[in-house]
Amino acid sequence: MNVTIIGAGNMGRGIGHRLAAGGHDVTVVDRDPEEAERLAEELRGAAQGGASIEAAGPGAELRGEVVILAVYYPGDVEIASDLGDRLAGKVVVDISNPLNQTFDGLATAPGTSAAEEVAATAPAGTRVVKAFNTTFSGTLVEGQVAGQPLDVLIAGDDEEAKETVAQLVRDGGLRAIDVGPLERARQLEGLGFLGITLQQPLGLNFQSAWKLIS
Amino acid sequence: MNVTIIGAGNMGRGIGHRLAAGGHDVTVVDRDPEEAERLAEELRGAAQGGASIEAAGPGAELRGEVVILAVYYPGDVEIASDLGDRLAGKVVVDISNPLNQTFDGLATAPGTSAAEEVAATAPAGTRVVKAFNTTFSGTLVEGQVAGQPLDVLIAGDDEEAKETVAQLVRDGGLRAIDVGPLERARQLEGLGFLGITLQQPLGLNFQSAWKLIS
Repeated sequence: MNVTIIGAGNMGRGIGHRLAAGGHDVTVVDRDPEEAERLAEELRGAAQGGASIEAAGPGAELRGEVVILAVYYPGDVEIASDLGDRLAGKVVVDISNPLNQTFDGLATAPGTSAAEEVAATAPAGTRVVKAFNTTFSGTLVEGQVAGQPLDVLIAGDDEEAKETVAQLVRDGGLRAIDVGPLERARQLEGLGFLGITLQQPLGLNFQSAWKLIS
Repeated sequence: MNVTIIGAGNMGRGIGHRLAAGGHDVTVVDRDPEEAERLAEELRGAAQGGASIEAAGPGAELRGEVVILAVYYPGDVEIASDLGDRLAGKVVVDISNPLNQTFDGLATAPGTSAAEEVAATAPAGTRVVKAFNTTFSGTLVEGQVAGQPLDVLIAGDDEEAKETVAQLVRDGGLRAIDVGPLERARQLEGLGFLGITLQQPLGLNFQSAWKLIS
């Protein structure tokens, strides 16, 4: 599959590693071309199954059928606005945790979510999926915590789009869990927030993961 | 420790098993005296360390320093109102998941939680703690899922009260995780809701658990 990752930061890196390991073709897009190329070079070293990894600037054509917004809120909403019609028809993955400035609450209004804001901003026909917001970058690079594959919780209103993301997740060696409609992003963003707040008090250093065991 | 469980249903049963296993004295209170006695009898069979287990009617004195509201929302808020000053000074544990009638959303207003409603309703000096809302009754009876002890996520504004609940959790063989102020109940209730919605689609039969692994 062709996947475009917008944002060559920590989360772009983590998700990029899973995609490269899964044999998918990745284009890394960043405002800073050097950052994009640096990450692309790293991912080439992790690529399996002949995956091609490229870097591109923000003006480049979006070749991927899947576009991952690996940026901080509200940058994800801003990018959805900036890209506009270029996103139509694509599967757009929002990974953000919209924390407020003091990191003790959510910046979004009660009763909505960053993912729903992205969906409201993107053009009609954009299929927004929430995923990867409860998994930390370092654990994505490794693909596991304490020997257990990460659970990636996925919400969205388009079943086919969710299955596309779930396939990418599974190809990267992780477990995909469909948690329902995009509205569930409210709970996913709550869970992501909860996980972040626990890092310092529990000394977890962003090496933890939420698992649904049974 | 003296603990009063209000509600002899599934969750009262699950939590009662952990308390009895931890050697704590439990009073089971229910509107239906037969239900209270039935559960008390079951818990006597599980009691360790000389724990005494009693049944009582709703008018009985609240002997416990800890009162667990093992009832459905908004019953928890109603009981907090009904008991009024009898709760003052006590550690009151809200375990509810305030699902709406169609089980596809939360019945609470955005930007609050059932636990915060209980705290706003109870008299001044009541120390409300959110706990046990992300653990299912059957898994509490067993104390584990897939050989791993349950994580019990605890939120509250009174540190001593939270530690009291954490001690009960640990004594019952479970792992206590302090997730911060009572406001975090919003995220815990979101997580509880998420867990409930996944039972049918994933065929989990309420035998699953959320774990924070590291």
